[in-house]
Amino acid sequence: MTNPLSTGATIGILGGGQLGRMLSVAASRLGFKTCIYEPGGDSPASHVANYHFQKGYDDLDALKQFAQSVGVITYEFENIPTSALDALEAIKPIHPNRTALATSQDRLTEKDFLASLGLKTAPYADVTDAASLEAAIATIGTPAILKTRRMGYDGKGQSRLKSPDDAVKALADMNGAPAILEGFVDFSHEVSVIAARSLDGAVSCYDPGENVHSDGILSTTTVPANLTSAQRTDAVLLAAQILNALDYVGVLGVELFVTPQGLIVNEIAPRVHNSGHWTQNGCTICQFEQHIRAIAGWPLGDGSRHSDVVMENLIGDDVLRIPDIAKTTDAIHLYGKADAKPGRKMGHVNRITGHAS
Amino acid sequence: MTNPLSTGATIGILGGGQLGRMLSVAASRLGFKTCIYEPGGDSPASHVANYHFQKGYDDLDALKQFAQSVGVITYEFENIPTSALDALEAIKPIHPNRTALATSQDRLTEKDFLASLGLKTAPYADVTDAASLEAAIATIGTPAILKTRRMGYDGKGQSRLKSPDDAVKALADMNGAPAILEGFVDFSHEVSVIAARSLDGAVSCYDPGENVHSDGILSTTTVPANLTSAQRTDAVLLAAQILNALDYVGVLGVELFVTPQGLIVNEIAPRVHNSGHWTQNGCTICQFEQHIRAIAGWPLGDGSRHSDVVMENLIGDDVLRIPDIAKTTDAIHLYGKADAKPGRKMGHVNRITGHAS
Repeated sequence: MTNPLSTGATIGILGGGQLGRMLSVAASRLGFKTCIYEPGGDSPASHVANYHFQKGYDDLDALKQFAQSVGVITYEFENIPTSALDALEAIKPIHPNRTALATSQDRLTEKDFLASLGLKTAPYADVTDAASLEAAIATIGTPAILKTRRMGYDGKGQSRLKSPDDAVKALADMNGAPAILEGFVDFSHEVSVIAARSLDGAVSCYDPGENVHSDGILSTTTVPANLTSAQRTDAVLLAAQILNALDYVGVLGVELFVTPQGLIVNEIAPRVHNSGHWTQNGCTICQFEQHIRAIAGWPLGDGSRHSDVVMENLIGDDVLRIPDIAKTTDAIHLYGKADAKPGRKMGHVNRITGHAS
Repeated sequence: MTNPLSTGATIGILGGGQLGRMLSVAASRLGFKTCIYEPGGDSPASHVANYHFQKGYDDLDALKQFAQSVGVITYEFENIPTSALDALEAIKPIHPNRTALATSQDRLTEKDFLASLGLKTAPYADVTDAASLEAAIATIGTPAILKTRRMGYDGKGQSRLKSPDDAVKALADMNGAPAILEGFVDFSHEVSVIAARSLDGAVSCYDPGENVHSDGILSTTTVPANLTSAQRTDAVLLAAQILNALDYVGVLGVELFVTPQGLIVNEIAPRVHNSGHWTQNGCTICQFEQHIRAIAGWPLGDGSRHSDVVMENLIGDDVLRIPDIAKTTDAIHLYGKADAKPGRKMGHVNRITGHAS
């Protein structure tokens, strides 16, 4: 794709969750139609999209039809089968690109990539069996955390080692999946940068947000984050370095630990990110529109922040508070999910706490 | 409807244009599904709605099915056939109510209603034939403007009389439709108030915007409007008076002429209004969400303005400027219409011009 996608064209989105839903809405503002590829029915994104391919990722015919019906393809989750990506990419461009996806799909590849850029990460080691875990513990020490290399999110696929005695259980928790051992980082708080890069290489970062997790799931993001001016600059520079190294097109989320020794990269997500939801009410152009602009070959929008915001996730039964929240000044964003299961992200609210200074 | 509509319910919208499109998007933020009733295919609203009844307003079976499939019904245009409204209202509540619709559908009824509240309007007189037009001219004088009582919008169905000599042509322009003659008002500028009233009678008004028209179509709305503090208060009070008198539920647009003698009501529109599009980027809760909240029986949202905004309509070929506009900080809102016909509203942009003081 060398020319910008014209308004009226259709954007293909792999995945029908809340990120796809909010991407669809943002795309509609720019006059685009959207087509969701999602095996499940009644998905959050399908409610607001023009078209829905309710097909599996192993249905090559459906994937081909989907690719032929759209102008460009993006995704809202990382764990897309390689065979599906191969079939799609043969027909239409996929943004962000396969390198970005492959890098972030695998914790070891990701850490190696970040280290190759000279960026700081938690100490880590490849773990394939009991012997390599023992060696990793000898190098990294405990406490540490064993994580599957692939498919982990929101704290799943992880096992903590308080001492070397926990090694056997932790390895069993991996269910035979390749893993990495990560040392703990002594950080004061976590921030994230939502960064965007356009097809012509322009980069724009939103102000970093400060994240608080609960039970391994993001609970709140607050902007502005508690950072020095130098830390803010570092955060933007390292995000841009990552985007450029990946020849990235779209929005990327970069999670950072703030430590006395500087910013340490926790992980990157090659997509719009939960910690960027505050941009919907804190900026004129939100992360979802920024992503659509980038993958459509449009210029990036203005990511300036006009307001201070606290974003709070509504997890499971939190959504039952909506009647009370509706009486406040909070901006409500619900995902149209029917069942408020424990741990399920049902929506979020953005509380404006003041004008940006 | 005595209980608030629960998130997950479906809201029925009559009309598939850009107002229905933006109402659908706002409804999705609150977790509602939407169902559009629109005879035309590929309509702006159907792109972002869950369901679309592509049926005529004379199809009583389709209207009944539509009403049975939704929790509440609203509309994005006024000229809905009475027989359709009767069929729908027998099954589900319609907000805003029939009184509001009947009042605003007919310029004479509207003027009589406003006069009954003691509000100022342009001088007007009922015109049914040549004799009544002659009498009207004798009372009101010229210049004046003859307007059909019903079905007029964006300057259509109107004929100007520079002198009494234009009477014959003006009457012919009405094509036999009942009309009213309106005297000209010597106003300095036009402003509008976007006002909302909830099911339990709470009222909330957005800051008035100042409107500039071109060829009878709204061109720009600027907030804040050029008004004294007393005029602002008057505008809010008269809007609330209108809402309460109509036992109104939803968002109402009130167009006002600013004159040395005070504010004169030009017309009211029982729906979200083009002159309220600035709220999408100037407020946390926009007019579309405010309308959805009201008709769903939810509390009204916070209509405070955080930014100064200039809204500019993109009419016809204006939309060809989008590639250049995309390079600016303007927020783009396109309607997904394929053909940029002259006079057709294709989208709008909101330019943030500063923090609200």
